[in-house]
Amino acid sequence: MTTIRPFYLDCDTGIDDALALAYLLATPTVELLGIGTVSGNVAAATGAANTRDLLQLAGTPGIPVAIGAHDFLARPFDGGAPHVHGPNGIGGITLSTADHTPHSETAAELLIRLAYENPGTLRILAIGPLTNIAHALRLEPRLPALIAEITIMGGAALVPGNITPVAEANIGNDPEAAREVLAAPWNITLVPLDVTMANVLEEEHRRELLAADTPLARTLGEMLGHYYRFYEGIFGRACSAMHDPLAAAIAVEAVALRTAPVIHVEVDAGHGPGRGQTICDLRGQHLGYPEQPGAHCRVVLELTEDFAAHLTNTIIGRTPQNQESRLQAAHA
Amino acid sequence: MTTIRPFYLDCDTGIDDALALAYLLATPTVELLGIGTVSGNVAAATGAANTRDLLQLAGTPGIPVAIGAHDFLARPFDGGAPHVHGPNGIGGITLSTADHTPHSETAAELLIRLAYENPGTLRILAIGPLTNIAHALRLEPRLPALIAEITIMGGAALVPGNITPVAEANIGNDPEAAREVLAAPWNITLVPLDVTMANVLEEEHRRELLAADTPLARTLGEMLGHYYRFYEGIFGRACSAMHDPLAAAIAVEAVALRTAPVIHVEVDAGHGPGRGQTICDLRGQHLGYPEQPGAHCRVVLELTEDFAAHLTNTIIGRTPQNQESRLQAAHA
Repeated sequence: MTTIRPFYLDCDTGIDDALALAYLLATPTVELLGIGTVSGNVAAATGAANTRDLLQLAGTPGIPVAIGAHDFLARPFDGGAPHVHGPNGIGGITLSTADHTPHSETAAELLIRLAYENPGTLRILAIGPLTNIAHALRLEPRLPALIAEITIMGGAALVPGNITPVAEANIGNDPEAAREVLAAPWNITLVPLDVTMANVLEEEHRRELLAADTPLARTLGEMLGHYYRFYEGIFGRACSAMHDPLAAAIAVEAVALRTAPVIHVEVDAGHGPGRGQTICDLRGQHLGYPEQPGAHCRVVLELTEDFAAHLTNTIIGRTPQNQESRLQAAHA
Repeated sequence: MTTIRPFYLDCDTGIDDALALAYLLATPTVELLGIGTVSGNVAAATGAANTRDLLQLAGTPGIPVAIGAHDFLARPFDGGAPHVHGPNGIGGITLSTADHTPHSETAAELLIRLAYENPGTLRILAIGPLTNIAHALRLEPRLPALIAEITIMGGAALVPGNITPVAEANIGNDPEAAREVLAAPWNITLVPLDVTMANVLEEEHRRELLAADTPLARTLGEMLGHYYRFYEGIFGRACSAMHDPLAAAIAVEAVALRTAPVIHVEVDAGHGPGRGQTICDLRGQHLGYPEQPGAHCRVVLELTEDFAAHLTNTIIGRTPQNQESRLQAAHA
C-alpha cells in the first residue's frame, strides 16, 4: 500500500521552483494541500502569480497559493535574481494568466492551519528563503510538534556558496530566518549545494521536456533555455543545477541517499564574511559520522545514482513500465 | 645549478613541527637561518626548548631559536594541545637537553633582521599560529616587500576544521593575527587541511623511521607513536595527518601540486560560529579557477602524488639514487 503524504510547499517561483512544483504534481504519493510564496528569486507576489499560472497550466488551479513575506527578517527584499531566472522569474516566458484573486491567509497562516488539520503527517518542502517558516514558528511555536518532516533546499557544507564564497542564496538571503528554522525542534532534511550542484540537467533533458505531450513539460523546457544560459557561466556548458526539484524528490523519498549524516548545523547570522553560511559539523567524516547527541538535521551530501532522468521522466509522465513498453515497441 | 634558499621557520614544536624541522634540515637546497617559536601546540618557550633539543640531536645546534609570542593577539594562551602532542609537545619523549640560553631577539625581531640581511630572497615557513608574523608586520610594515614568499600551514577550504566545524587550529587559535597576515601584500601559499588530511603517514612509515641510522629519525618514529594514537580517533586506524612537514615540502617546491588556485582568502575574525575559518573563494572551481584580480594567496587543494614516502626518505637520508642501489643490491 502506498501512503499519500500531505505537503505544504514554500517557494519563490523561480525556474527550478517551477520544476519542483511540476515534479510534486506528477508524483502520485503527494497531496499538495497548499503553497506559500516568499521573496527570493522574485518578489513573493510575483512568485505567487507565477505559481498560480503554472498550476492552471498543469490543470490543478484549485490548490491554494498564499502570498508570504515580501521582506526578509532583517532587511528589505532587494529585487531577487533576474540574471538567473529572468525578469519575471520564469525565464521571460509568458503564461496565460490564472485567477489571481489573493488568498485570504498569509503563507505562515496557511501553513499553521494545514499543520493543525493534518497533525503529525504534514510535510513541509521549503525551497526559498526561510522567512515564511520563521514567521510561522513565531506565530505558533508548537508548529514543529505538528510536522512530520521539513525538507529545505539550502546551504553549502563542503562546496563553495553561490552568492558569497560560503553562502547559498536561500540561506544567505535571510540568515536570521534560517537560524531560527534550523534551531527549531523538528526533523530537518537539508539539501545543500553539495548535492544540487553535483546533479545536473543536461541539454538532452531539456530536449526531452520540449518534446513532451503536456504543455507544462514543454513550458519547463522553454524556461530551461534561460536557466542554462546562466549556468553556462558556472559550468562552462549549457546545463543547470537542480536545486529545488532535487529537494522535492528527496522530500518524497524518491531518490536513494549515499551520504546523509544527521549532524549539528548552525547558521552564521553575523555580519562578517561568513554571513549566511550553514556551518555543518562534518568532523566525523573519516569514522562514518558517529552520532551527535541532540542533532536533528540530516544533511544530504551524496546520492547513490543519477537523478536527472528520474526528474524528467516524472514530469513527462513516463513511468519505468511504459518506458519499457516504448522500448519494446521500438524494437518489435 | 641548484639554488640555495634562505629560510625563516616559525613553529610551535609539536610533533609534526619536529618532522618539518627534520625535513628542512635534510633538504640540501634549504639554508635555515633562524627559527622563531610561538604558542600553539605548546607554549612558545616550551616549543623553543623542544626545537633546540631537536637541533642538538640533528647536530646543528648553531641555528638561532628565538622565543616569540606567548599570548595570542586577542586572548591569552590556554595550554595548547597536550591530547594531540603529549604534555611536553613531543609525545612525552625526553631528549638530552641542549643549551637553552635565551636568544637576544624576539621571533619577530629575528625575522625582520633576517629579512633585511636577505632582501627579496628570504622565505618564511609558518607552521604555528600567525602571532609572531603579525607582530613582525606591525613592527615593520615594509616586511612583505623583503620576503620572496611565505608558506603557511593552516586553514580549511572545502573540508571540515579540526578545532571547530570550520576552523583549523593554527588559524583558529589567533584569527586576528591570521587576518592581518593573509591581508598583507606578499605571495602566500596556504597549505590547509584539504591537503594535509588527505596525505597520511602510515604505520610502515613510522617503522622505517624507527629503523633508521640517525638518532633524529628514530626519535621522530618514537614521537609518532603518540601522534598516531590521537589520529586513531580521527581516521579509525594508527596513522597521522602530515600538516607541517607537507607545508615544508611545498615551501621547498619538492612536491608537485595538482590543484592550487590563487584566490581571495579572508579570515573570519568575528565571534560567531565561523570564527577562525579561512573563507576561500572557490566559486570558479567548475571553470578551472579564472583569475581573481588582486588575489595573492595560492591555496593548495591537491597534490599529484603520494607524499609520505618522500618525507620519510628525505628524513632518513635515502635519496632516490641510493634507494635504487639498495634495490639492485637486494636483487643481485
